[in-house]
Amino acid sequence: MLNFEFHNPTKIVFGADTIARLSTLVPPTARVLILTGGASAEKNGTMDQVRAALGERSVHQFTGIEPNPSFETLMRAVEQIRRDDIDFLLAVGGGSVIDGTKFVAAAAQYQGDPWEIMLSGGAKVSSALPFGAVLTLPATGSEMNNGAVVTLKATHDKLAFRSAHVFPQFSVLDPTRTYTLPAKQVANGIADAFVHTVEQYLTYPVGALAQDRFAEGLLQTLVEIAPQALAAPEDYATRSNLMWTATLALNGLIGAGVPQDWATHMIGHELTALYDIDHARTLAVVLPALLDVQRAGKREKLLQYGQRVWGIDSGSEAQRIDATIAATRAFFESLGIPTRLSGYQLGQAAVEAVIDQLGAHGMTALGEHKNIDLATSRRILEAAL
Amino acid sequence: MLNFEFHNPTKIVFGADTIARLSTLVPPTARVLILTGGASAEKNGTMDQVRAALGERSVHQFTGIEPNPSFETLMRAVEQIRRDDIDFLLAVGGGSVIDGTKFVAAAAQYQGDPWEIMLSGGAKVSSALPFGAVLTLPATGSEMNNGAVVTLKATHDKLAFRSAHVFPQFSVLDPTRTYTLPAKQVANGIADAFVHTVEQYLTYPVGALAQDRFAEGLLQTLVEIAPQALAAPEDYATRSNLMWTATLALNGLIGAGVPQDWATHMIGHELTALYDIDHARTLAVVLPALLDVQRAGKREKLLQYGQRVWGIDSGSEAQRIDATIAATRAFFESLGIPTRLSGYQLGQAAVEAVIDQLGAHGMTALGEHKNIDLATSRRILEAAL
Repeated sequence: MLNFEFHNPTKIVFGADTIARLSTLVPPTARVLILTGGASAEKNGTMDQVRAALGERSVHQFTGIEPNPSFETLMRAVEQIRRDDIDFLLAVGGGSVIDGTKFVAAAAQYQGDPWEIMLSGGAKVSSALPFGAVLTLPATGSEMNNGAVVTLKATHDKLAFRSAHVFPQFSVLDPTRTYTLPAKQVANGIADAFVHTVEQYLTYPVGALAQDRFAEGLLQTLVEIAPQALAAPEDYATRSNLMWTATLALNGLIGAGVPQDWATHMIGHELTALYDIDHARTLAVVLPALLDVQRAGKREKLLQYGQRVWGIDSGSEAQRIDATIAATRAFFESLGIPTRLSGYQLGQAAVEAVIDQLGAHGMTALGEHKNIDLATSRRILEAAL
Repeated sequence: MLNFEFHNPTKIVFGADTIARLSTLVPPTARVLILTGGASAEKNGTMDQVRAALGERSVHQFTGIEPNPSFETLMRAVEQIRRDDIDFLLAVGGGSVIDGTKFVAAAAQYQGDPWEIMLSGGAKVSSALPFGAVLTLPATGSEMNNGAVVTLKATHDKLAFRSAHVFPQFSVLDPTRTYTLPAKQVANGIADAFVHTVEQYLTYPVGALAQDRFAEGLLQTLVEIAPQALAAPEDYATRSNLMWTATLALNGLIGAGVPQDWATHMIGHELTALYDIDHARTLAVVLPALLDVQRAGKREKLLQYGQRVWGIDSGSEAQRIDATIAATRAFFESLGIPTRLSGYQLGQAAVEAVIDQLGAHGMTALGEHKNIDLATSRRILEAAL
C-alpha cells in the first residue's frame, strides 16, 4: 500500500424526504444563492422542496449552469454573488452544477483572474464561500469530493482543479429526486461511476487489499443494478444503491493508498471539449481501447478484475484479458452507450484533433506509469475507431 | 437502504515514517498533553519520534491509561490538563488510550460531574478539547470515529458514549509502529475488527448492496491476512492492510444505512467488566453462540456471509448456516483465541453473573430486532459454555 492522506469532511444526508433537512443544514441567517442547471429541478418539484426548507432566509437563484460548466457562465454567478451580497451557496443538480458551484465558491473570494484557479489546478485557492449541495443526478461523485472540472468555452480548454477549501459542507442525497431523469442520463451516470472506480483500481497491484475489495464491490454493484436502474425509474432500492455507489466511487476512499490512472478521463475530456460528446460516453469509448493497449502494464489487475467482477477464470491469460475487456465494452453497450468513435460519427480526423489538443494541454505522460505519450494516446484512439 | 447521515471529519495520515507529520498537524503554539498507556511506545521508539516531531512546543505527558480505561484514571488526566493549562491532546497508543483521550477531551470542558457524560451516552457533551492520535495497535477503529468506552472501576460499569465533538482531528497510522506488538494483541485486534464488521453487516437484508460488499471485503481481507499478521510481525504489507482494515471496520461507513446489532459487544462488555477478559476475546466467545441462537432472524445474511466470505454454498440452509458459524469459530480459534467460556475457566455461575449485570444496566432488548431479552442472553451465554 502506498502512503496516503485521507480527509473528507462532507456530511452526507441520505434518503427519501431529506431535503427538508436543509432547514437546519443551511445557517439560519445565510443569504443563499441557489445554483441550478436547466428547468428540471423546477419541474419535478425539487426546487419547491428546497425553497420550503430554506423558509424565511434570503434566497437568490442563478440558473443556467450547463453540462460541462463553462468559465464564462460561472463568472456571471460570481458577479451575482457580489451584487446580492451572498454568503452561502447551494448547488441543486448533478455533477456539472456542483462542479460549477465549487469554482464559483473559490472564484468569489479569489484575488486576481479566476482562470488562474484552473491553470494552477487549485493550488492558488486559499479560501472559498461555504456551500452545500442537493444532488439530483448520481454520476460524478462531486457531492462528496473537492474536485471540479470547468471548460473555457472560448478555447475548448477543459481543466480540473482540486482544493481542500471546496468540499461541500453537506450534500443531501434523496434517491426519489432521480425518478424523473431521462434514461440517457442514468446510463451516463452508471458509466461515469464505473469508470471512476476503474481509474483508481485497474492499475498495478500494491497489495491494498481492502481498497481492491471496495472497488470491486462498487463495480459489482453497478453491474448488478444497471438493468433495473434503466428499466424501473421509481424503484427506490435500486436508485438508492446507484446514488450511494456513485458517491463512494469518487470520494477519495478507494483511491487512498493506490496508484491511479485517469488517462481515460484526460483523453475523454478532449473528446467532450471538441465534439460535445457526453462526458460518460467519452469514457466508455476510451476505456476499452485503453485497457487493450495498456494490457501489459495492467496485466495482474486485469486478471483480478476479470475474475472477481466478471467471473472470468478460464482460458489463457490473453484470452481472459480479451474476455474481460469484451465484458467491459458489452456492459457499456448494454446501457445504450456506443463504445466506438464511429458510433459518434467520428473517424481518423478526430483522432488527430484529439492528439493535437492533448499535446497543447501537455498531456504527454498519462496513466499510472506516466507512459502514455501522444503516440500511445493515438494507438488508444485508433483502437477505439 | 435505510436513511442515514454520514459525517467523518478525521484526517488520516497513513504510512511508514509519517509520525514526523505531527510537526504540521499539531498547532504550532499548542500546549500539548500526550496520553499513553504503558511503556511500550517509549521502549519501541515511537515516543522519541513523537517528541522530535513536536519540536519546541510545550509538551506534557500523562502515562498509565489502562486497557478498558477507567473513569478514575482518566479524571487524573483531567486534573493535569487544568493544572498545566493544556489546550491540545495527543493520544499515543491503541483503542483504550484513544477512547480515554476522547473522554478526557470532553470531561476537561464539562460543567458538572463528568460521569454524566457516560450516563447520557454523550448527549450532554457540548464541546471538547481538540485532539489527535498516533495509533500503535490496529483493532478498535477509535482513531477514526467519535465513540468511546469507559469503565467505572468502583462499580464495574462499562459504558459507551458518542459525540460529534470527539472525532480526532487527525490520526497518524504508521504500520511499522505495530511491529513490536505481542502476538496476543495482534490476534485480539483482528478479532475485534472482524466483529465490528459483523455487528454492522450480519443482521437482515435492506438491499444496501455497496455496504454489504464493503463489509464482506473487510472480512475477506482479515481472513486473508490473519496468518501472516501473526507469523511475520515485520511484514509491512500485511501490517498496513491490518491497520487500514481495522480503521475502516468502524469509521461509520459500512454501518451507514443498514441495521446494526451490537448485542455481542453489550454482552461481551459485561464479561470484561466482571472477569477482566480482553475485549476482543469476549467478542469471540459471544459471537458464534449469538449467531447460533439468532439464526432465524439472521438467516438471509448468514447464508450470504457464508457464501461470499467463506465460500459455503452447498448443503441445506441449516447445514450451510452450521458450517458458516463453525467457520467463524474456527477463524477465532486459529488466532489462538478460545471461543468458549470454559476456555477462560468460567461456567454457569458466570452466565448468571453476566445476566444480573445486563439486567442492572438495562440491557434487556438487544440486537437489530431488539428481541434479545435476558432469557435470550442466557441462552446465548449457555451456548458459549
